[in-house]
Amino acid sequence: MIRLPFLPTSVVLPLASNSTITSPGLGLWPHPSSLSTGSEYVKLANDFNIVFAGKGYVPEDLEDAMRNTRALIWNDQFERLLVGRGSVDAEALLNSSISTLNVLELRLTPGSNNLKSIYENTVGVDASERDESYRLEVPSDASTAILTANSTLGLFRGLTTFTQLLYLSGETVYTFKAPIVVNDRPAFPHRGILLDTSRNFFTTDDILLTIDAMSWSKLNVLHWHVVDSQSFPLQVPAFPELAEKGAYDSASIYRVEDVKKIVEYAGSRGVDVMVEIDTPGHTTAIAESHPEHVACANAVPWVKYAHEPPAGQLRITSKETIKFTAELFSSVMEMFPSKYFSSGGDEVNFNCYAHDAQAQAELKLSKKTLEKALSSYVEQTHSVITGAGKTPVVWEELVLRHKINLANDTVTLVWKSSSHARRVAKKGFRIIHVPSDYFYLDCGGGNWDGADPKGTSWCDPYKTWHKMYSFDPYQGLKSHQRNLVLGGQVALWTEQTDSNTLDSKLWPRAAAAAEVFWTGPVGPDDQPRRAAEAFPRLQDFRYRLVQRGVQPIALQPHWCAIRPHACDL
Amino acid sequence: MIRLPFLPTSVVLPLASNSTITSPGLGLWPHPSSLSTGSEYVKLANDFNIVFAGKGYVPEDLEDAMRNTRALIWNDQFERLLVGRGSVDAEALLNSSISTLNVLELRLTPGSNNLKSIYENTVGVDASERDESYRLEVPSDASTAILTANSTLGLFRGLTTFTQLLYLSGETVYTFKAPIVVNDRPAFPHRGILLDTSRNFFTTDDILLTIDAMSWSKLNVLHWHVVDSQSFPLQVPAFPELAEKGAYDSASIYRVEDVKKIVEYAGSRGVDVMVEIDTPGHTTAIAESHPEHVACANAVPWVKYAHEPPAGQLRITSKETIKFTAELFSSVMEMFPSKYFSSGGDEVNFNCYAHDAQAQAELKLSKKTLEKALSSYVEQTHSVITGAGKTPVVWEELVLRHKINLANDTVTLVWKSSSHARRVAKKGFRIIHVPSDYFYLDCGGGNWDGADPKGTSWCDPYKTWHKMYSFDPYQGLKSHQRNLVLGGQVALWTEQTDSNTLDSKLWPRAAAAAEVFWTGPVGPDDQPRRAAEAFPRLQDFRYRLVQRGVQPIALQPHWCAIRPHACDL
Repeated sequence: MIRLPFLPTSVVLPLASNSTITSPGLGLWPHPSSLSTGSEYVKLANDFNIVFAGKGYVPEDLEDAMRNTRALIWNDQFERLLVGRGSVDAEALLNSSISTLNVLELRLTPGSNNLKSIYENTVGVDASERDESYRLEVPSDASTAILTANSTLGLFRGLTTFTQLLYLSGETVYTFKAPIVVNDRPAFPHRGILLDTSRNFFTTDDILLTIDAMSWSKLNVLHWHVVDSQSFPLQVPAFPELAEKGAYDSASIYRVEDVKKIVEYAGSRGVDVMVEIDTPGHTTAIAESHPEHVACANAVPWVKYAHEPPAGQLRITSKETIKFTAELFSSVMEMFPSKYFSSGGDEVNFNCYAHDAQAQAELKLSKKTLEKALSSYVEQTHSVITGAGKTPVVWEELVLRHKINLANDTVTLVWKSSSHARRVAKKGFRIIHVPSDYFYLDCGGGNWDGADPKGTSWCDPYKTWHKMYSFDPYQGLKSHQRNLVLGGQVALWTEQTDSNTLDSKLWPRAAAAAEVFWTGPVGPDDQPRRAAEAFPRLQDFRYRLVQRGVQPIALQPHWCAIRPHACDL
Repeated sequence: MIRLPFLPTSVVLPLASNSTITSPGLGLWPHPSSLSTGSEYVKLANDFNIVFAGKGYVPEDLEDAMRNTRALIWNDQFERLLVGRGSVDAEALLNSSISTLNVLELRLTPGSNNLKSIYENTVGVDASERDESYRLEVPSDASTAILTANSTLGLFRGLTTFTQLLYLSGETVYTFKAPIVVNDRPAFPHRGILLDTSRNFFTTDDILLTIDAMSWSKLNVLHWHVVDSQSFPLQVPAFPELAEKGAYDSASIYRVEDVKKIVEYAGSRGVDVMVEIDTPGHTTAIAESHPEHVACANAVPWVKYAHEPPAGQLRITSKETIKFTAELFSSVMEMFPSKYFSSGGDEVNFNCYAHDAQAQAELKLSKKTLEKALSSYVEQTHSVITGAGKTPVVWEELVLRHKINLANDTVTLVWKSSSHARRVAKKGFRIIHVPSDYFYLDCGGGNWDGADPKGTSWCDPYKTWHKMYSFDPYQGLKSHQRNLVLGGQVALWTEQTDSNTLDSKLWPRAAAAAEVFWTGPVGPDDQPRRAAEAFPRLQDFRYRLVQRGVQPIALQPHWCAIRPHACDL
């Protein structure tokens, strides 16, 4: 806490004044890797248009993105966060010498010859192959802004940035920092949100709005933890009975056409949907239709067999269950064209098998230990993933706790502690950071699994945006291990969240992580990222979300939001 | 944590079964002081009606309540929280011997001769004079249910209970525990929610929906902390400039007609609106129009002069300011017919005056200490409150920290710690419990007032419903002091809450407090209240809120909600 020198007695203090308040810059979020700005105003023409500088074919999703961008520009109705809001710029905008912007022209880099759709640039490709870079120029003395990229995906990112340059005053949409040149590319290729749709169900519309908000903060992976022990809301073509019996009800099922809609909607917004079928733990809901594959299903007291109710795990000792799992993976993979598929693997509870007569008999017959059985199970089911040309993604236990032959390119989700990344790197596996001590959005709501739970949640306290923002993706890693970091994500486990609070659990905190992994360690002015600098920009992003129909938490009294830095200590 | 004896190895565990799940009773919330139930089903007739058993005049708000109750009954569409939901009762409802309920008849107790409106029974009367008691009988073998009370307010409470008896199965609305006899009255006369509308603004519609939800949990006081240092959203007839200049913007003002609407809407739902004009601290927004009355307004660094930004307090040393405050109180009191008026009085920061030249000069002239000046200020401004026939309500500092002659009937809001109630009682003042260690809904969201705040919120952790539910209103009090407890309330300070998260900050946690102060220390079966017993009932209330358009937090995975006690430890 900074405490300025104490004032002498009886000094008359100044009344309210804006003079002490730093005039903020543009509210770009995440901050681009390079930005130069001037101080000229530029108005948008009433017939402002976005065009693609090329003849003939334009991918349909790029055309949609251009149309959606125009809609956002006029619908945002977002006034600057200053006392007086839009009126602060009213006088300046009366100046007749201000340029009018008529067109934003989109260009693909000459020679890039990449007319793939945004979707094709996003889905089914390796993270390293996605080119999200772009260059955006808004002149102060000409009527055309130029957006250039090597790919339609890069153009899409640039369109998103363009909307964040604009504010409303009266009926004028304008920017106030021209000329503007943005050169931008992400620091990490994987920037995600994990959403658990098993503990509580979310509608397809909930997910589509979440994807929109992800794209606005340049997040690019929806890690869809679609099923778990509590419910199985995914219609799987090869096993329709899983959802029919395992979903909460017939309205709480993602049908094949819903998944298709979500995957396409996401892909055309630069978001890849990485599905997770978490096994062998977290699978009780499968017992509703396939009790033969689930050990200790709904066993009581649950606390002996699982981390949370209900108990139940796939019977890793059974050949039939391994076959079932492989077929389940295959069928699900056909619905999700992503290059990545998560098979889970967290929190396997051996006690569940210790008390399962069938598992014990099978172990005896095969002369395997439980560890060996788990390793067999994972290796056999993973061969289906790699056989389909996909990259397996697993929770850290499969790397750190168990001895399993994993494919070299397996990606590890580090969750138990941010300090475990070092251990995963030592084993040479690629890393997605999703540490519970930084990025678990569900922490801090108190304990829920008990008759008289008095306690706090296991991962207390609540993770604030500042905490997330302070994360160092290279923490504990040696310099030669840095290339193992694929990126990171926040996680929303939904024991205490449903449709009613989805937005407020996610936003704007997920955006803090978005900047960590897009902008990287270095923020504006080539200085290390600092929350103090970021706060007004994050407020801009947060208020813009509200304009766009999202319900984020408030970060401060509105008084602070319209007086950047006035509430700093 | 209860751990059951460990099972012998290789025992085959039972698969999912509902047999271990206790069949829950009615989801009444708050639990009535006396309830007897049977086990018969009773269906509601399609033309079910609610009638008043008296000829001639029926107060308009009672008629509205009868109409609204009919609407709730058909619109709730709420199926029981069990696996299978409404279908669990489908077969039983086919039984042709089930009675049909055609009418709910409302009766005023013979001789009570009270045809005052609900509003008149609620607003402008002393808490002790409100009669909220009622008796509700739903027979299993007759077509008329009877609701009896001494007042229309009691009838209103009974109507609320009646809606909670009913569930949907297919197209049938029914109850399953007839015959039902409820004899009910509140343990405490004051059961409230404090809502701060200054840090962030809430629309009139937000407040009306909050009042509805309050009435559904039988809360009866909206403690409206309407203005504070950050903004002054209240249009005060005598000083319209306060809101014109002190509100966030012209759309963020409660105009005289909005207040009238809110007070009437609340009163006709058994909710009294107790307004607070917090002085002399928490008043910076007044400086926007009346800088002459505010010391250290917007002084920096704020941390030296106030608990949060911006700094600024009414100049207690000035006769003009005392006169202004008295006139402000008078004008505001004319808008709020409640018997109670809160003048605030918390967190007065003497350092603010120590550095105010005018205050120092005035002190010197009057030869008063700051303590003496504060005492004069409070005594003079309170004389306006008592002069208007109202009861002053103050924050605990005016009783515990400062030496002030307060009227004997002054009510004290105990907030700093639940342990302070004892000290207030020792001084003989009446108590409203609103301790931050139990009832502050804003805790646990992290620190917000800083450039790089890393910390948790000052009143961490998050207050769970269990924590609230565990509150003992008589804690630390001697038996002869118990009558000093007027009741209690939750508080929603809105530094980190706006319209987007109002519902989820309030609900269902506010309902936990509602039961503490309605049901009192003794719950169902004359046992002490227990969270384990309450949880399924609270889930019922919470899911019913969702059906009624409120957005509460989820307390558990839906899996647990439809399996009462299955997630108990």
